[in-house]
Amino acid sequence: MRIAVVGAGALGLYYGAVLQRAGEDVQFLLRRDYDAVMETGLTVHSINGDFHLANVRGARRPEEIGPVDLVIVGLKTFANDRFPGLIAPLVGEETHILTLQNGLGNEEALAGLFGPDRILGGVAFLCANRGEPGTVYHLGAGRIELGAFAGASSDRVADVAAAFTRGGIDCRVVADLRAARWRKLVWNIPYNGLCALLDQTVDRLQSFPPSRELVRLIMGEVIAAANTQGLNTPIEADFAEQMLVFTDDMGVYRPSMQIDRREGRRLEIDAIFSRPLSAGSAQGVNMPRVDMLRALLAIVDQDTTGVDVTAD
Amino acid sequence: MRIAVVGAGALGLYYGAVLQRAGEDVQFLLRRDYDAVMETGLTVHSINGDFHLANVRGARRPEEIGPVDLVIVGLKTFANDRFPGLIAPLVGEETHILTLQNGLGNEEALAGLFGPDRILGGVAFLCANRGEPGTVYHLGAGRIELGAFAGASSDRVADVAAAFTRGGIDCRVVADLRAARWRKLVWNIPYNGLCALLDQTVDRLQSFPPSRELVRLIMGEVIAAANTQGLNTPIEADFAEQMLVFTDDMGVYRPSMQIDRREGRRLEIDAIFSRPLSAGSAQGVNMPRVDMLRALLAIVDQDTTGVDVTAD
Repeated sequence: MRIAVVGAGALGLYYGAVLQRAGEDVQFLLRRDYDAVMETGLTVHSINGDFHLANVRGARRPEEIGPVDLVIVGLKTFANDRFPGLIAPLVGEETHILTLQNGLGNEEALAGLFGPDRILGGVAFLCANRGEPGTVYHLGAGRIELGAFAGASSDRVADVAAAFTRGGIDCRVVADLRAARWRKLVWNIPYNGLCALLDQTVDRLQSFPPSRELVRLIMGEVIAAANTQGLNTPIEADFAEQMLVFTDDMGVYRPSMQIDRREGRRLEIDAIFSRPLSAGSAQGVNMPRVDMLRALLAIVDQDTTGVDVTAD
Repeated sequence: MRIAVVGAGALGLYYGAVLQRAGEDVQFLLRRDYDAVMETGLTVHSINGDFHLANVRGARRPEEIGPVDLVIVGLKTFANDRFPGLIAPLVGEETHILTLQNGLGNEEALAGLFGPDRILGGVAFLCANRGEPGTVYHLGAGRIELGAFAGASSDRVADVAAAFTRGGIDCRVVADLRAARWRKLVWNIPYNGLCALLDQTVDRLQSFPPSRELVRLIMGEVIAAANTQGLNTPIEADFAEQMLVFTDDMGVYRPSMQIDRREGRRLEIDAIFSRPLSAGSAQGVNMPRVDMLRALLAIVDQDTTGVDVTAD
């Protein structure tokens, strides 16, 4: 499969490298890492074993790549206004587009530009950071829950899932992509938000009763909103407790939004906060704590510069 | 009037100095400032004109002072467990105790220890900081709203108010001290809380629409709780808007809790947040944003040391 990776931050570099190693024909749209990757290739330091790709095909502009079978989108969501310029040159008759971005609204934005039938979505559970140019650190997890946004054939979804599986990724096809997105938001909204706001790792929030209780209350608001969205199966009442226990095992983990803030990047407030709030509000669900967290993050986000738009 | 000032931070030093200048017999319970004040007196840099008191009576222990007519309490509220040791030696048959501390519960704590009939409360609208030892900066305002907690005679309240007035303080006797406290909380809860949490001055919150809206929502929760407390006159619906406009004129102002956090002091979470939350909750008022702000402050307060207990 000819694959183009747009938004080659830690997430795009990691999954692209894994797919290339599994035999796919991968090209990376690069900016910061271009020179390093062209000269020395791409190095992945992974909990599953390090590997190096000596020959990696990079491009500075999508026109150098042209139409592919699959575009993998790993851009930071605040850069979604760059979809037309970055993705259109990669799209031909048969091209599918897979967004592995955070939050809500990414599939819809791509569908509006390129038609709904070619859009896939993947909810990525990946802990990875970029290192020096040409290097990515895979620190944990990596599972992807994959689904069609609208009319994509289940054969194509299965093909994409099979490619990830050949690369060693635990990739599961889900019938209800929106349910998968909302279930991830139950984690992302409290932990990304609070860790970024307070510059605290998840273990600090877990171990202090007032913050643990706040996480639980925020999760409750997200679950209440999710369960008005017509998901195939409602999120179960004890999912918040499950997520709290799951997070206890993560140790000193720093969510991506905390890293974004530390590194002066813009925060993904729209996709992770504003769109879920709007979706809940449209169904009459009041989410005061999520709304307050959104406002607090917007205040601290004023001071960021927003130069780096790759997702990780 | 023989007056003892307990908790001689910026607030205690400023009001004590003003009362001494007006002819009252003031003694200060001092710790950090003791040596400087004993050697060179007390200097007030004030927007109303600087002045210096060459002869100031300080003490390190309340037993050195003994019973007085009026104890003025300026301790940080998290040090209220020190009331017995610090105040009991100052209390005789006729002693009254005036707390100028922030938030709720201070009069009640004093009444429980020393009897309700001798307790007065004052809501201080003062912007002051400490400088080097022996020096206090009066940066703005200074008004006091003074009232009896329970059975104190109106003559004694008037005497105390008259002393402040002779010192040049705008001191108003109020019939409903609890209403005055709640009205100040409408300001203190959002601005102290958010400025401390975000380390932003009030003008930053005022000028950014998401934070201005958050301030308004928080004020609305406080007003809703206040109006279930049996105040003589309910807080009017447009009071939040009045406070927002009032705050627009304050410029680059840093509330005391923001200063406390910057200087590594503990935050007055119990008096300013937990007690109003409990009072609202007891009347069935849900205050999700105030509760979330309390939790967020508790998280950041974990990292403070709490060595300095004077109010300012």
